[in-house]
Amino acid sequence: MPVNYATPAPEALFPVAGVRLGTAEAGIRKLNRRDLTVIEFAPGSRAAGVFTQNRFCAAPVTVCREHLAGDSGIRALVINTGIANAATGEQGLQAARDTCAAAAELLDCAPREVLPFSTGVILEHLPVERLIAGLPAAQADLAADHWHAAAHAIMTTDTVAKAASRRVTSGNFQFTVTGISKGAGMIRPNMATMLGFVATDAGLSPALLQQLAKDAADVSFNCITVDGDTSTNDSFVVIATGASGCMVDSEASPHWPALRDAVIGVAQELAQAIVRDGEGATKFITVKVGAGATAAECRQVAYAIGHSPLVKTAFFASDPNLGRILAAIGYAGIADLDSAGVRVWLGNNDKNAGGEVLVSEHGGRAASYREEDGARIMQDAEITVRIDLGRGQAQATVWTCDFSYDYVKINADYRS
Amino acid sequence: MPVNYATPAPEALFPVAGVRLGTAEAGIRKLNRRDLTVIEFAPGSRAAGVFTQNRFCAAPVTVCREHLAGDSGIRALVINTGIANAATGEQGLQAARDTCAAAAELLDCAPREVLPFSTGVILEHLPVERLIAGLPAAQADLAADHWHAAAHAIMTTDTVAKAASRRVTSGNFQFTVTGISKGAGMIRPNMATMLGFVATDAGLSPALLQQLAKDAADVSFNCITVDGDTSTNDSFVVIATGASGCMVDSEASPHWPALRDAVIGVAQELAQAIVRDGEGATKFITVKVGAGATAAECRQVAYAIGHSPLVKTAFFASDPNLGRILAAIGYAGIADLDSAGVRVWLGNNDKNAGGEVLVSEHGGRAASYREEDGARIMQDAEITVRIDLGRGQAQATVWTCDFSYDYVKINADYRS
Repeated sequence: MPVNYATPAPEALFPVAGVRLGTAEAGIRKLNRRDLTVIEFAPGSRAAGVFTQNRFCAAPVTVCREHLAGDSGIRALVINTGIANAATGEQGLQAARDTCAAAAELLDCAPREVLPFSTGVILEHLPVERLIAGLPAAQADLAADHWHAAAHAIMTTDTVAKAASRRVTSGNFQFTVTGISKGAGMIRPNMATMLGFVATDAGLSPALLQQLAKDAADVSFNCITVDGDTSTNDSFVVIATGASGCMVDSEASPHWPALRDAVIGVAQELAQAIVRDGEGATKFITVKVGAGATAAECRQVAYAIGHSPLVKTAFFASDPNLGRILAAIGYAGIADLDSAGVRVWLGNNDKNAGGEVLVSEHGGRAASYREEDGARIMQDAEITVRIDLGRGQAQATVWTCDFSYDYVKINADYRS
Repeated sequence: MPVNYATPAPEALFPVAGVRLGTAEAGIRKLNRRDLTVIEFAPGSRAAGVFTQNRFCAAPVTVCREHLAGDSGIRALVINTGIANAATGEQGLQAARDTCAAAAELLDCAPREVLPFSTGVILEHLPVERLIAGLPAAQADLAADHWHAAAHAIMTTDTVAKAASRRVTSGNFQFTVTGISKGAGMIRPNMATMLGFVATDAGLSPALLQQLAKDAADVSFNCITVDGDTSTNDSFVVIATGASGCMVDSEASPHWPALRDAVIGVAQELAQAIVRDGEGATKFITVKVGAGATAAECRQVAYAIGHSPLVKTAFFASDPNLGRILAAIGYAGIADLDSAGVRVWLGNNDKNAGGEVLVSEHGGRAASYREEDGARIMQDAEITVRIDLGRGQAQATVWTCDFSYDYVKINADYRS
């Protein structure tokens, strides 16, 4: 069960002008499940993406990078679950290219206008002939209101489909931003998440679109962790069709702030949904680190806490074993950190119950801290750990979840 | 149950001339358990240590560093379990100093000749008056053959006591090296482990003793990980009494190689015992990374594998989900790693059953690899992952364990 998250209803996912989605059963790894998704874009659409830094990056990631480098338009995404097509060598690359070629022939575009994405088991070969055989059914299913179905079709160990949508009026224009994501484990994105796709019918210049994709990833998918494992397939792509007629070609455009906010907002909802649905998660934890010398060191501290199995199991147990948080701050790698200057607060969303309590200062337990206050806050499903490093002005936020029996169960069983 | 490890019998732990050990019940955190240990050394003994790099280091670690910096001799260690005396500010420092003063008065030495060690819960104050009240009973218990009892008295979440001992004849001399360690969780030492103490009746010059402590830590306690959490209290101390009459004052000494090997051997046994008894461990995993450009990058890769919850849960499940190992290699942080040059083998100790199989090369699954071979090896309780990075001559080894339901259970319950 995800923590305070439910898939939006189909009608809450606004169609994006110029975008149609179709799903099909291709039998990639298991039968009787929709494991193939095609997202088609009107001519003139552009895309920009950020991808995993994993050196064993999947074949489709390599092909995506090649196709996006060409600066031609993008007409379709083809997404399969079941097999990640990662650590599959030359054969894997050929499979990803064959996928693009087959989709391009069906959709009457060039192969370089198709981006391939895969998610699932690593080190196994993609049954590309079955994928290609499934494409006509996905094409036949293409419709503007199939966002909900597509969000379901890209799931693997996810327990809920993840989607978000906003319709924005800016001046005389209206534009829409709708996106979907998937991921629950192997989540510690570095330049993106497992899979995230956000489309808008606004139009953007190539440079601005690339900047928007990066800016949105940096404050959304690059701020989450479930288990610290950076996937081989992490991909986040923003597609702009321009079909709404609302063009944004520079940061001076009057529509830029609203468009930027909407894309970032949708990306953050999608990224947080992945943590809320983190494998075995029972709690959603926000780690805010402030007063650091650099944003990088704030992220280091936030991730040290977000990755610590000891901190995560204490959250699972609702045990205010806060020494584990201090230990993680201490080993995060800030060589000259003065522990006496660090302050730590624990909070929840229940303002009536006291909101936030100071846990630690002067290198130890805060004089005002009472164990029962910590214990009360730890009962909540939404907890914020706020840290003041006492060294500067920088800050960073990371979202994570707890570590439960079910995490072990899910990952010990995943391939069976 | 630890993986292929049992505490040596009391008679297998050789007394070290000049060393006596005593334990007592001080009621530090719980009643009716021996939670206080004193180890006394003959006049003229020297000590050297390596300690945690955690910036929230415990008060006793700070005091140990001060006392060892003085270059006076060391006459005693005082070790308590239950409370770590970490993140306890000035009050914690005073408690550690009071402990040394009280022990010094009893043992008729200077406070700076006493080293204090604590392990247990962080962020809670040490009941120093109870500790001091327990010292006379520990003193009354001092005996040369109490290594076994001391190994038991320093345990926390350990399921077995950890000890190792060697008696070495070098030329006309005989010397003894005996040590104990504790630790099962919050194990990712950085310059030492939770607690490890090794004593020898050989004599060493201060510089050589310090070098030996560092060299031994680097190939033992600094090569293990259970959960990636570097403790606030990690301490590894080597004590040389000189009481055997065997003096080693330079690397040119004929006894140096045998003494160095014995201390390193004991330290490795003690460090591996911690992993074998890792919280919830069912498998002992050796990760050997070779052909790297630097030892540091080999360690990065080995630790990425050793820390990955996905890899560790796959080992728990005996599932040869080897793509997770490749993913961990890929995100370990070697920016210019060529995945096509990486080779990965999986092996166990059963030479008759085929020993080691090549799993991956050329960026994907090895042509010769059969899933049933991987599945067979994964059944073993002792598994070796060997990686060739194809970039140079450096190598590094890390020992770790798997990640089971019991890890979560132990750490979700620890304070209750």
